[in-house]
Amino acid sequence: MHRTLTSELPAHAGERVRLAGWLHHQRQLSKLSFLVIRDRSGLAQVVVDEPELRAQVSALRPESVLEVDGLVVPSPAAAAGVELHEPHVRVLVEPAESPPIELRRPKLKEQLPTILDFAPVALRHPRERAKLELAAGATAGFRAALGACGFTEIQTPKIVSAATEGGANVFPLDYFGRPAYLAQSPQLYKQTMVGVLERVFEVGPAFRAEPHDTGRHLAEYVSLDAELGFIDDHFDVMTLLRDAVAGIVEGVRARAAAVELLGVRLPEVPREIPHLHFAEAQELIQAATGEHVVGELDLAPAHERWLGDWVRRTHGSDFLFVVGYPMAKRPFYTHPEPGRPEFSNSFDLVFRGLELSTGGQRLHRYEDYLAALAGRGMSPEPFDGYLQGFRYGMPPHGGFAIGLERLVARLTGAANIRETTLFPRDRTRVAP
Amino acid sequence: MHRTLTSELPAHAGERVRLAGWLHHQRQLSKLSFLVIRDRSGLAQVVVDEPELRAQVSALRPESVLEVDGLVVPSPAAAAGVELHEPHVRVLVEPAESPPIELRRPKLKEQLPTILDFAPVALRHPRERAKLELAAGATAGFRAALGACGFTEIQTPKIVSAATEGGANVFPLDYFGRPAYLAQSPQLYKQTMVGVLERVFEVGPAFRAEPHDTGRHLAEYVSLDAELGFIDDHFDVMTLLRDAVAGIVEGVRARAAAVELLGVRLPEVPREIPHLHFAEAQELIQAATGEHVVGELDLAPAHERWLGDWVRRTHGSDFLFVVGYPMAKRPFYTHPEPGRPEFSNSFDLVFRGLELSTGGQRLHRYEDYLAALAGRGMSPEPFDGYLQGFRYGMPPHGGFAIGLERLVARLTGAANIRETTLFPRDRTRVAP
Repeated sequence: MHRTLTSELPAHAGERVRLAGWLHHQRQLSKLSFLVIRDRSGLAQVVVDEPELRAQVSALRPESVLEVDGLVVPSPAAAAGVELHEPHVRVLVEPAESPPIELRRPKLKEQLPTILDFAPVALRHPRERAKLELAAGATAGFRAALGACGFTEIQTPKIVSAATEGGANVFPLDYFGRPAYLAQSPQLYKQTMVGVLERVFEVGPAFRAEPHDTGRHLAEYVSLDAELGFIDDHFDVMTLLRDAVAGIVEGVRARAAAVELLGVRLPEVPREIPHLHFAEAQELIQAATGEHVVGELDLAPAHERWLGDWVRRTHGSDFLFVVGYPMAKRPFYTHPEPGRPEFSNSFDLVFRGLELSTGGQRLHRYEDYLAALAGRGMSPEPFDGYLQGFRYGMPPHGGFAIGLERLVARLTGAANIRETTLFPRDRTRVAP
Repeated sequence: MHRTLTSELPAHAGERVRLAGWLHHQRQLSKLSFLVIRDRSGLAQVVVDEPELRAQVSALRPESVLEVDGLVVPSPAAAAGVELHEPHVRVLVEPAESPPIELRRPKLKEQLPTILDFAPVALRHPRERAKLELAAGATAGFRAALGACGFTEIQTPKIVSAATEGGANVFPLDYFGRPAYLAQSPQLYKQTMVGVLERVFEVGPAFRAEPHDTGRHLAEYVSLDAELGFIDDHFDVMTLLRDAVAGIVEGVRARAAAVELLGVRLPEVPREIPHLHFAEAQELIQAATGEHVVGELDLAPAHERWLGDWVRRTHGSDFLFVVGYPMAKRPFYTHPEPGRPEFSNSFDLVFRGLELSTGGQRLHRYEDYLAALAGRGMSPEPFDGYLQGFRYGMPPHGGFAIGLERLVARLTGAANIRETTLFPRDRTRVAP
């Protein structure tokens, strides 16, 4: 018999079907047993009244892998509006042990370290799994939005000869007896590829040897990167980022069951996201809070939250671009602000008071790169391949990056990024 | 003025437009100069007759970044059927040097090592760039085919605590003072995720410390991976792989300009790809060639080529599944063939005489994993996270992997995989 998914049951009322999945949970009443079967599409309830079968299933461990044939019967009491009666149960695989995670609860009650230690089974919980579906939807939406704008997807090397963003927080590697590094971002390669394809994007891993144990940092994460040529300045990049975020939201919305299960409140992405210069933002914050922030080189998380409240109050927007961050805090490839070279043509996108993406216009002239590296005391030699692109003609360009796990954390309101990361890596964790 | 792409020019005959791109090439005749402008969509010819402008452009280096306004004029002599007259030229960026690669030739004439050393500029050649477009099309087609079959895309960690496929050829890493490795494949994680999502795929980097310097091996490549649960045996995986390959071919076909430029002959993917057992294949080869291959544990490349010819001749197919490879040559997680345990429920997909993909059914019972590891003298301890999935109930499952660069090499007939790899990594090369 052909397999039917639990989500398809309502369309098969009155028919005999075959389910396959895991024994999510069972309840024994005096005359009946209820089995809840979980498959990739959801849950279904099976009613067992035959005494011999009741005895058999009562011995099954949670997470037993089953095939269940039965009659689909409307049942207002069942969550899906139907349940399976007159079942035949075939045990495909019996687990060696009962799982250390109670998957039957509406939300996992275990602490995060336990959930992470037992991720292969904890992720089977419908809410945990739904986060992965949001991530997949976000990625699909990102690709769709950029593909529609003439962008080509690339995969750039993750083993590199130069530390991308400077020497700190990089993982060194023994590469056939020579030193090499794990790429901290595809930054240098995506810029190079602007010279080839003009408009490129990448979805791939990025590696940071983060010494801090915070709820916001990981040693490995998935970066959604884009870069485009022939721009006037960073405002063209911001227009693209706005469209990419709108695409991401649509991609997430398409995973309707996961959105609903997690109660995600999806943002509206304004056609024009409000923007504020870094210097103006500091003045607003100083005037409102009395804190002396004007002249500081960065915004503290509390100030980002203040700006998130401010833009919601004044513009009804979940999003705000802060532009013009001081050059001192930005990487060497950053383009300065014409006329105010202490500021930069860069931006952060603040979403509900938290930084979601960073980007900006890059330098594009070879001599500007040589000067920028020299100005920071960096040798051009490790960047030789990168500098080729500029030596042989690169248009004005810019781009941005979004951390996928951070994005899903923002959407679901997760306090710790590890809650929305598939097998997180940090200072103390490299397994499972 | 709004920018027009070179590929859009034929639709604008009689109008003034603005192009932006690179000075691909120029020719000086006695009274005229021809500029060829390259942008992401193709090439366009600009005719310059005004003496002052001729003098100005003659001084421009190849790869100068230009904006050119001009009148679109039909011209049967021009490749696109139109060319630009009465141009105004604005130089956006002058290269610091002329490129070391002659991009103007129909095919690059430099040797592969030179092309790879100067990849940031060599990739700008339309044929080199077209290979990247084929890769992007293949990836998009792979995702579309699997997405349509209920698969969820995942990104699994690349920093891992156990060597995926055994200890050889793995890159070790200093992970905050502890040993870790770069993932040789997402194998262990994609199997784990069958327990969570049943059907998963991944497009991501894989790392092999290949000591061999061949035209077929890389230290880093892009792997297209899929894994699905609730199968009967490897034939269900082969059905999926067939659909994935058909999707890939459609994705490549959609990049029509690149396919045409490279003269790619796209294969037809039969609804049912012919299959042959490993033992039968050996007997066929032995009977036809007189070579004593029966009893060998693997097929040599020459034998794969022979089989490719055979299936073309007898079935009119570019594809052949060879199933049942000896267990001795397959990894520990391989499912044996029921009744003939020296053979396995695994397969190779041979495309035009070359291996394109490997896959099969995996073990799914916890006790079978413990026995398989013990039988190979491997400790279960480093695999603890992986083994969780099996300990707590995993359905029968299997999957496959396709190397993206190898796939594009097969399609384009490239002799060396480095010709179709974006910034290849091998024993001697880690830059650019």
